[in-house]
Amino acid sequence: MISIVKIGGNVVDNPVLLGRFCRDFAAMPGAKLLVHGGGVMASQIQKALGMEPLMIEGRRVTDEESLKVVTMVYAGWCNKHISALLQANGCNALGLAGCDASVIKASRRAPKTLSDGKTVVDYGYVGDVGPESVKAEFLRLLLDKGIVPVLCAINHDGEGNLLNTNADTISSSVAAALGGRLVYCFEKKGVLSDVNDPGSVIPHIDKASYAALKASGVVAAGMIPKIDNAFAALENGACSVVIKHSEDILVESAGTTFSL
Amino acid sequence: MISIVKIGGNVVDNPVLLGRFCRDFAAMPGAKLLVHGGGVMASQIQKALGMEPLMIEGRRVTDEESLKVVTMVYAGWCNKHISALLQANGCNALGLAGCDASVIKASRRAPKTLSDGKTVVDYGYVGDVGPESVKAEFLRLLLDKGIVPVLCAINHDGEGNLLNTNADTISSSVAAALGGRLVYCFEKKGVLSDVNDPGSVIPHIDKASYAALKASGVVAAGMIPKIDNAFAALENGACSVVIKHSEDILVESAGTTFSL
Repeated sequence: MISIVKIGGNVVDNPVLLGRFCRDFAAMPGAKLLVHGGGVMASQIQKALGMEPLMIEGRRVTDEESLKVVTMVYAGWCNKHISALLQANGCNALGLAGCDASVIKASRRAPKTLSDGKTVVDYGYVGDVGPESVKAEFLRLLLDKGIVPVLCAINHDGEGNLLNTNADTISSSVAAALGGRLVYCFEKKGVLSDVNDPGSVIPHIDKASYAALKASGVVAAGMIPKIDNAFAALENGACSVVIKHSEDILVESAGTTFSL
Repeated sequence: MISIVKIGGNVVDNPVLLGRFCRDFAAMPGAKLLVHGGGVMASQIQKALGMEPLMIEGRRVTDEESLKVVTMVYAGWCNKHISALLQANGCNALGLAGCDASVIKASRRAPKTLSDGKTVVDYGYVGDVGPESVKAEFLRLLLDKGIVPVLCAINHDGEGNLLNTNADTISSSVAAALGGRLVYCFEKKGVLSDVNDPGSVIPHIDKASYAALKASGVVAAGMIPKIDNAFAALENGACSVVIKHSEDILVESAGTTFSL
């Protein structure tokens, strides 16, 4: 069984959390693959270069100059720093962007009407992916050789353009394409029934209970895209999904699990 | 026969030259591998971030912040941009830094006494490599699958640190480790006997003629490290070396060839 582990910016940005995570991830048994987000460094560098980061409905508008920055930060510093840390922990990591061996080919997002029903936004060099975007046989070739792919959120369109892509969606698509177990790591112990109580982890969510949690407003708005990605992974072939703290990846029983 | 092609910053910085090069490189027959330098973007970004690029005897002094910038630029934007362009030309490129699958493990350069015999410089996160630094079996595995490795000049030390490394030396070391043919591309037609006459290409240089060219001052100082790398490649197992223009990679007879 292949594990697909995703870490977000909060781990990537924090040297202590990242160091611990890399040690634990290296110790995880079995075939595995890491997907990482980017953290705040891209926005910091944009600002230092005199650019104004623009997020609309949680997604970064990525013009040509922003694309250079996110590619530098995600595929450059973050990806290679993590790859080097994993190597130092005895894990044979191989950092990849989607262009590399065309491992993930995204399609550029068409201009999108926002939730107000009126405003149309062109997100620029932003890509969407699904399980069909993933070259599973290349990932299996690496995994068979004991190599651990480390994917950043930069993909390509096959026509020479790089595209900024959501790391949660990449993880979901890769887990579906490989039929693996998806492990979303973040800064909480799981999906909480009370955001103010770190111990209020909901141990299991299925589609029926998810509908009820959404209807009652228990699930915070920021969690919804992640949970949608969790269900999409299961619907498309992933064998299991769990959302847990990045410090709990070696704790089998931790976090919130999902079923359809 | 495996071709190891190296392009420098002048090609990476110039969209027209880079586009043509990627088209021609994609059309090159046989197993092949690309090594690229970084160009002026790293220094531009350092300056924009308020850092002062410091070069001593042609080598960049790389402190922790500079290392982040060169890793972002070389392993991030340059490497992935080239990988995506090659993919668009039908070449199955795979961008790599040395940490990836530990393909190149460098050793951090010890503080060095300069040519004045007195000043000692700590170059910081700068690595040195030789043929023994290269994991040739991993490169052969990729090449056997029709994959074209694209190496940037960022390597690691195996202890979690990234190291900035000279791209000419990487190319020489990889060509030696693979017993391949080394093709140094730059902005001139070859080694010139008269720097003011672009047509004055010296067709062949061996160690005896090189000594004479150096003694008479015909070979410009800037060419000496590249030619030294050319001879090092031959001494360590490369089967041939040529220095030519980046626009001539498909012209078999172009450039300056070398023998011991």
